[in-house]
Amino acid sequence: MLQPTSAPAPTGQLPPGVHRASDYESLARGVIPAPTFEYIAGGSGEGVTLAANRAAFGDLSICPRLLADVTGGSTRLALAGRDRAHPIMLAPVALQALVHPRGELDVARAAAAVDACMVVSTLSSHRLEDVAAATAEEKWFQLYFQPRRDDTLDLARRASDAGYAALVVTVDAAIQASASSALRAGFRMPADCVAINLQGYAARSESRLAQGQSRIFQGMMRSAPTWADLEWLQARAGLPIWIKGVLHGDDARRLRALGVAGLVVSNHGGRSLDHAPASLRMLPVIRDAVGPDCPLMFDGGIRSGADVFKAIALGADAVMIGRLQVYALAVAGALGVAHMLRLLHEELEACMAMAGCASLADIGRRGCVLRSSREPGLC
Amino acid sequence: MLQPTSAPAPTGQLPPGVHRASDYESLARGVIPAPTFEYIAGGSGEGVTLAANRAAFGDLSICPRLLADVTGGSTRLALAGRDRAHPIMLAPVALQALVHPRGELDVARAAAAVDACMVVSTLSSHRLEDVAAATAEEKWFQLYFQPRRDDTLDLARRASDAGYAALVVTVDAAIQASASSALRAGFRMPADCVAINLQGYAARSESRLAQGQSRIFQGMMRSAPTWADLEWLQARAGLPIWIKGVLHGDDARRLRALGVAGLVVSNHGGRSLDHAPASLRMLPVIRDAVGPDCPLMFDGGIRSGADVFKAIALGADAVMIGRLQVYALAVAGALGVAHMLRLLHEELEACMAMAGCASLADIGRRGCVLRSSREPGLC
Amino acid sequence: MLQPTSAPAPTGQLPPGVHRASDYESLARGVIPAPTFEYIAGGSGEGVTLAANRAAFGDLSICPRLLADVTGGSTRLALAGRDRAHPIMLAPVALQALVHPRGELDVARAAAAVDACMVVSTLSSHRLEDVAAATAEEKWFQLYFQPRRDDTLDLARRASDAGYAALVVTVDAAIQASASSALRAGFRMPADCVAINLQGYAARSESRLAQGQSRIFQGMMRSAPTWADLEWLQARAGLPIWIKGVLHGDDARRLRALGVAGLVVSNHGGRSLDHAPASLRMLPVIRDAVGPDCPLMFDGGIRSGADVFKAIALGADAVMIGRLQVYALAVAGALGVAHMLRLLHEELEACMAMAGCASLADIGRRGCVLRSSREPGLC
Amino acid sequence: MLQPTSAPAPTGQLPPGVHRASDYESLARGVIPAPTFEYIAGGSGEGVTLAANRAAFGDLSICPRLLADVTGGSTRLALAGRDRAHPIMLAPVALQALVHPRGELDVARAAAAVDACMVVSTLSSHRLEDVAAATAEEKWFQLYFQPRRDDTLDLARRASDAGYAALVVTVDAAIQASASSALRAGFRMPADCVAINLQGYAARSESRLAQGQSRIFQGMMRSAPTWADLEWLQARAGLPIWIKGVLHGDDARRLRALGVAGLVVSNHGGRSLDHAPASLRMLPVIRDAVGPDCPLMFDGGIRSGADVFKAIALGADAVMIGRLQVYALAVAGALGVAHMLRLLHEELEACMAMAGCASLADIGRRGCVLRSSREPGLC
Repeated sequence: MLQPTSAPAPTGQLPPGVHRASDYESLARGVIPAPTFEYIAGGSGEGVTLAANRAAFGDLSICPRLLADVTGGSTRLALAGRDRAHPIMLAPVALQALVHPRGELDVARAAAAVDACMVVSTLSSHRLEDVAAATAEEKWFQLYFQPRRDDTLDLARRASDAGYAALVVTVDAAIQASASSALRAGFRMPADCVAINLQGYAARSESRLAQGQSRIFQGMMRSAPTWADLEWLQARAGLPIWIKGVLHGDDARRLRALGVAGLVVSNHGGRSLDHAPASLRMLPVIRDAVGPDCPLMFDGGIRSGADVFKAIALGADAVMIGRLQVYALAVAGALGVAHMLRLLHEELEACMAMAGCASLADIGRRGCVLRSSREPGLC
Repeated sequence: MLQPTSAPAPTGQLPPGVHRASDYESLARGVIPAPTFEYIAGGSGEGVTLAANRAAFGDLSICPRLLADVTGGSTRLALAGRDRAHPIMLAPVALQALVHPRGELDVARAAAAVDACMVVSTLSSHRLEDVAAATAEEKWFQLYFQPRRDDTLDLARRASDAGYAALVVTVDAAIQASASSALRAGFRMPADCVAINLQGYAARSESRLAQGQSRIFQGMMRSAPTWADLEWLQARAGLPIWIKGVLHGDDARRLRALGVAGLVVSNHGGRSLDHAPASLRMLPVIRDAVGPDCPLMFDGGIRSGADVFKAIALGADAVMIGRLQVYALAVAGALGVAHMLRLLHEELEACMAMAGCASLADIGRRGCVLRSSREPGLC
Repeated sequence: MLQPTSAPAPTGQLPPGVHRASDYESLARGVIPAPTFEYIAGGSGEGVTLAANRAAFGDLSICPRLLADVTGGSTRLALAGRDRAHPIMLAPVALQALVHPRGELDVARAAAAVDACMVVSTLSSHRLEDVAAATAEEKWFQLYFQPRRDDTLDLARRASDAGYAALVVTVDAAIQASASSALRAGFRMPADCVAINLQGYAARSESRLAQGQSRIFQGMMRSAPTWADLEWLQARAGLPIWIKGVLHGDDARRLRALGVAGLVVSNHGGRSLDHAPASLRMLPVIRDAVGPDCPLMFDGGIRSGADVFKAIALGADAVMIGRLQVYALAVAGALGVAHMLRLLHEELEACMAMAGCASLADIGRRGCVLRSSREPGLC
Repeated sequence: MLQPTSAPAPTGQLPPGVHRASDYESLARGVIPAPTFEYIAGGSGEGVTLAANRAAFGDLSICPRLLADVTGGSTRLALAGRDRAHPIMLAPVALQALVHPRGELDVARAAAAVDACMVVSTLSSHRLEDVAAATAEEKWFQLYFQPRRDDTLDLARRASDAGYAALVVTVDAAIQASASSALRAGFRMPADCVAINLQGYAARSESRLAQGQSRIFQGMMRSAPTWADLEWLQARAGLPIWIKGVLHGDDARRLRALGVAGLVVSNHGGRSLDHAPASLRMLPVIRDAVGPDCPLMFDGGIRSGADVFKAIALGADAVMIGRLQVYALAVAGALGVAHMLRLLHEELEACMAMAGCASLADIGRRGCVLRSSREPGLC
């Protein structure tokens, strides 16, 4: 059985000193061993994209709107055929046993408690069937293409059988680069942290490369999914397919044309291609590309309800929470995750109320997100 | 009776080392206990708006104008039906007994000494009637809508009876978020620091929320004022009404159309919605929205006469001073506040003289405020 | 007799470790007592303009030009009716005995040694007649208007009699604000540092102000020069008049129309109106305003030959050196000043050579100064 | 014989802790004596251009492209009449014995091992003939014009005789300014580090200057190459000529018109004219000037494959690696240099794969490099 890498917080009581969702980040730093924290918090390469994700939010302001009657307000939305209480979802995060032995099982309980849709990772620490069974609430399954098509399809079918309502296909992670900070801190994945869902599937073969062939192009990229793979999967998956990792308008248009269920604007939390642009910088580009009706989620750097508000103002229908999920799990298990989500939800409501928005749709209509630094009216 | 949280400075002598109004800020840091100082100096949330308020001034330069004869100059202006010596007012600040036992009474004496109009807070430490009686000079009363309309009207009538000349209705504070820095520093409001004017009024009821209702929308916002409340008050207040907290052009236009006496561009000193834009960034937007004739005040980050000059150049008729007021009060009581205001006034005069402006109206006409960073003439 | 505030460096030998003109700044920090250094190095108020002066240079790049034959090159120019070896002048600096007992006498000797025109301050430590007699080279006299017109005229006539070739009338210093850093460092002007040229003239009277009158407008500004004063002086001075302190295009045009000999774009080294724009930012504005033929000097933040190059590219005919002059004087007397000027001159020549400019006129023509940060060609 | 200034790393084994090419920089800091490191790492003057070179990369993002099939991808290109495995060349670096006794001989072996074209410096520590003979692979020779034309031609002919395939004529180094940081750190070139190729040639004569002549214009610039010198060399060199140091569009056009083989956009790694613009900032300007077909190389600040990708996106056909070459040589000799180049190559491939680029030509076509900071869609 998986062992925690540090003593988990006792469940059943909230940690003191948490006033805002982001407080879980600083608390987590005291709970998670430093190399592991670096692994979770870090980005690929020099961490340029990681930092850009956060900085992009700082460039936007939210202009209050006065005297609106928002007593009938709510954060409800219709998305993917369901009415939902709020637009905050749990991003797929691999191997959550790294910070808590119950990992994804606890996250599922937390999600159920606060009506948040959880996206379970292909690389979860617990079997996808067990996570699905943990609660009766809607869950989605994040799917990585496997080296063998049969295995990919098997994963998709297991997800469908276990009751997952949608697939989120991640397509921006063909090449994984470790965070320099984690390498420097000496992080190594514990031996018992394994991708249990993939047991029995073919591993990516160390390709035999001919003279002059590239370890990247003719090696790693051989198992990377292509447009053909996606169309093949679409025809067989039996579940709606969302595509995660979209940053370029041309890709968004082509995916839209294929009829996918929706897109997730994301740069993998700054963990894939370092120097990729901030997710938030590309969000309005993608919204422009796909038009107002395409379901669009946003992922990348959210730490507060104000950040959720800004993402929605720039065109997202909903958002995904990655690192805060792990921090809250590490600090206080299921209770922590549920608490963090409730704080985030209330922070969003407070922003909406102060900006005179009684609904998520109002956010785009009220013209209250603007560049912080643009000074009008002087030469 | 209220006790000071630290020994007040002896009145009757000015503190050494004060050359500019802003010097009171550093002196105050040595006089006010650290948690209290954090509470006063801090902003809501992460302090983003607080910092933006100050940074916006740094982006503007004042271009000197040469050889003008300004020996007939003055800072006089007509505002709200009176001729005034200068455009510097005292912003409403709650619970001033936190830094000085005589609090608002001393501020009133200081204001009278230097011809500055004081705006007394609904949340003053001393009874509004007592502050009104402290001096014979004009004062205004800042009004927060109360949960019960009767109480709101009672406050307005007490203000009118006590001789206040106008109401400043603050509409941007329905949701109060504490400053993280103050929370971290362990600040707690002393038990004897209470909003004495509200004794006997109904408190905001902890609303019983039904399942699925929001603590924000169906809770706190139930007692937030709406357009209907404002119109109701306008019909009954018997005093001119200014609206404080305006940042969006559409709100400014609508308020103007309602016939309010004037507007105060403000983000509550960065203490309300964190991530709100800098007040100064929105000032020209609001001036554009309401046209040249609407009385407009500015509040948010002023620390020097140069800042006053810039605010007037961007469209303000007058400005309000918040934190410097508290700092000077803490350091040297009434004398400190009067001294700070006199320094601010002279700093403004010096700026005007060096910019060749013999009157406040000249400030807008002389074209001497410009962006610091715009480099003309190169590709 | 004036005593140095610290032992002057022995003359006759150059200090080690000086590779560039700007090295005199760091050396001076070790030679000049700290409060005095703060007084010299600091700016008025918060030092915003002081910092802006330097930062403006950093925003510009110099693009090398290749393979030009510049073996016939020189920095010669015609200015104010004379052919000059280079465009580097010595700015007027008050009370140089503060750092060296021979003060202006040594600076005059240095200027003569390297063909630099020196502008002697009204507030020089040595009598203007003595400085004039120190060398036979051309010198100019910086003139401050005196409270009494007769005294102003007397100064101008003494300058003319002593052989000064032009007057540089400083018009941006009606109100002097001390640098906060100097005040904090405890600087006080030594009792024997006095404006010897003004002995016998009327001091600015502490004006008796009526009730409600302003210490600025009806006080200090009473002795500030006006357009009328300037025209009065022009008719009587008997010497060409340059105006120092010009930053606004409208003022530049009006001065040009009056027929002054030339203008000096300057913000008094950041020592007058804090928050004034960087001199360099306004230089192209002034050049645009007065057209290509008006003699124009630049003053404000020059520390290297590259800075001289940039100022000339933006429209200056020549430049004035203030603080570096004092630093070099403090470190090594006349020899230091001459050495600093020679280094500056060679740094300018090296820039010109690498930018393919064989003459100062080439600098404007070769299109080699551009914004550092403007990235062309991407969305 | 040359002695290493510190014990070289044992060859035959890679240093631990190198995950990315840029890791050699931090390792080198521990191996190279501090003054020497400052000399290598530093730039001229204040290091402004040096810093700008790096900062320019930070302003660009690489937008991932999804689901492309790049399994047939490669970094191959045709350049200078040859098919090459990748676009990464070794920049000419003087006196490599400063960090390793085998210096250029080891670099040549490394270049051969990874199919990188090496450009050998005129100022190499080992004789150009010996470096040429070290391996059979293609090499180019960097040529500095010598004071005597005969010597210049002799160098060119020796290079041709030794089998070098092209000349890279550096034209931006007529005036050498030392890095202040190296001077301050006390760096002095060791006596046995000499430009062995120049033995027997005439040194630059200390010109006798007449009164009033300039040490720069009539001194140093007398031996600087001109357009006439270049045309003279072109007619006689017998090898294709590349010009290194181009930053201005007009120069690029004129060189193109002369029919040179290609250009190298470079500011000499920030070691020539300080305040020159970042190489990357001028790259698209030069590409615009010369059109799509002119062979163009880029040099200046590359530390990663992402940097190579960005340079190619902005118009470079290939890039040159300077400082990383020296760092890797110092750390681990030939093996280090080969390893560094292989890492750089793979980093480039990974970027290409994640950006959906199967060839270098795709990089320009896929529209995936964009400004980091431009936020679209808000006012």
